[in-house]
Amino acid sequence: MASDLVRDIGEFGLIARLREALPDAVRVGERIDFGIGDDAAIWTPAPGASSVITADTLVEGNHFRLDWTDWPSLGHKMLAVNLSDIAAMGASPVLATVGLALTGDERVGDLEALYRGAAELAAPHGLAIAGGDIVRTTGPMVLSVTMVGEARHVLRRSGAKPGDRIVVSGTLGASAAGLRLLQDPVLRAKATTADLLVGAQLRPNPRMALGRVLAERGASAAMDVSDGLLGDLPKILEASGVSGRIEVGHLPVLPAVRALFPGDWEALALRGGEDYELLATVPVGALDALVEAARGVGATVTDIGEVMTRGEDAPLLLVVDKHGNSFEMVAGAFDHFG
Amino acid sequence: MASDLVRDIGEFGLIARLREALPDAVRVGERIDFGIGDDAAIWTPAPGASSVITADTLVEGNHFRLDWTDWPSLGHKMLAVNLSDIAAMGASPVLATVGLALTGDERVGDLEALYRGAAELAAPHGLAIAGGDIVRTTGPMVLSVTMVGEARHVLRRSGAKPGDRIVVSGTLGASAAGLRLLQDPVLRAKATTADLLVGAQLRPNPRMALGRVLAERGASAAMDVSDGLLGDLPKILEASGVSGRIEVGHLPVLPAVRALFPGDWEALALRGGEDYELLATVPVGALDALVEAARGVGATVTDIGEVMTRGEDAPLLLVVDKHGNSFEMVAGAFDHFG
Repeated sequence: MASDLVRDIGEFGLIARLREALPDAVRVGERIDFGIGDDAAIWTPAPGASSVITADTLVEGNHFRLDWTDWPSLGHKMLAVNLSDIAAMGASPVLATVGLALTGDERVGDLEALYRGAAELAAPHGLAIAGGDIVRTTGPMVLSVTMVGEARHVLRRSGAKPGDRIVVSGTLGASAAGLRLLQDPVLRAKATTADLLVGAQLRPNPRMALGRVLAERGASAAMDVSDGLLGDLPKILEASGVSGRIEVGHLPVLPAVRALFPGDWEALALRGGEDYELLATVPVGALDALVEAARGVGATVTDIGEVMTRGEDAPLLLVVDKHGNSFEMVAGAFDHFG
Repeated sequence: MASDLVRDIGEFGLIARLREALPDAVRVGERIDFGIGDDAAIWTPAPGASSVITADTLVEGNHFRLDWTDWPSLGHKMLAVNLSDIAAMGASPVLATVGLALTGDERVGDLEALYRGAAELAAPHGLAIAGGDIVRTTGPMVLSVTMVGEARHVLRRSGAKPGDRIVVSGTLGASAAGLRLLQDPVLRAKATTADLLVGAQLRPNPRMALGRVLAERGASAAMDVSDGLLGDLPKILEASGVSGRIEVGHLPVLPAVRALFPGDWEALALRGGEDYELLATVPVGALDALVEAARGVGATVTDIGEVMTRGEDAPLLLVVDKHGNSFEMVAGAFDHFG
């Protein structure tokens, strides 16, 4: 029954129930020989491809709040943040393992909903949920997802060259705007665009097809925007030994974000995190074809600035505002312990 | 300085310090193209091999106590429990990701010691620590390790056949005996064998070479003993659709365990967890050569019983005591919520 608690059915009962909550296509992938239930899951790597692995941990109260999210959305998001890393490598997902640290007071039906939400995102991307681990904790719930992907040509952060254009997919700031609305129920109730923005925060859509397009169409570097543009772009610039210059006036920002936050939509676009868009550098000559190919997979890509040679004592990143004034920006990544 | 707290240096400072704590051989493996620092780590799978993946989560207060373990031993154990799963598949380890959920009050020097302890176990096994994730929690510390391995021939739980012998490596009950000593400082102070038994609990040695021997020498099924013999053997029997019979008198148990716990060494050997020995089934004709090959890699393998056809309504597992009496055993795996 959906009202059972985890402590009522125990670890092995829960594993069986969660396994049942997954459709076959997600439990056992095309090249997954064996899923949940042995000491390890087994798969056959694609010949000639590189494998990639990424891990993200979500802690209740820090990365998610159960009074803000529903369980299927949480299942969606715990995979989306990892899928986005896989996309940023130009890779396709293969499998994920899920670790759950639970108190035992959780409702089994809620965790089944978590898994169903995860499965709905996993299935169209060919991702198998291949096992994991369930343990007991006295503290907040912790969801640990590790994901494996494969790519013929891997996109790294370190390939940006002077003269390359800096591009970003979709729009920036929508997820941070959604978080503001969750924090401010009065504003949320008034906002006709609340569903759009809260949806961007709770159910981000990883740019899987675009990641492959970036790899195939000659992007020189890429990463996903999880810590905000000013937090993440410096990581590409540092890794590549270059500097960058972006124009605030060119940033793609939803009209809804500009309208609801007229005083600080620029801050949301520059520093807001969790958009899970892709940020890339592209040689000028490859840009038009790449933008066209991105359109073919349903993604917009916006040119927001350029990569420059990094001189001695030169700033890592210059931000040019709408009046043409340049500011040296201090890297502003979200630090969990800041 | 070793007295810095995590909150003083922040997430990115800690990542840099932990990276420094790892020797090169553990940071970047032979076929690892890129380690800690990109969206994902990249590796090249061995052509023709199968890949395996396993995940284990350790929660402070549940899986470890900081007043019982030292930090290097905890680093050793967090990898050992995953390495043991890799060994049980007959595989060799490739890489691990480590997720840390921390409060911020931890000492950086302690976490560096954790990583150095991990590196000491990783290096001789060719395991790379290829990245991970550090997040903040208000609750107990959570360590989430996911490990990838590779094998030419994968050992599963499901291949046991009637007539096969049931074998186990090393000895059983030492880790549970060590746990008893940690819980009973008076007994521990008196026991001359305390270091041996506590060491079995805090620093288990995964049977990597033996796992490969089992796979090469025709074992029909294998798993590692983490939940106790009576918890784990039924999993092989269930997965294989067979039943089993073991003789308590044949169980390999250290004299130290028998001497310190005269009343319940049998219970420790049958139900004690965390020995991280390998449990396998072997066709009779392959047994002698397998035992000999195991000796060649420094492992003892003991014949403790036999696999039988599973009749209707027949018990899954019969345990024969030293007087020749048979008992049907109820599966007794450790359930985290039991």
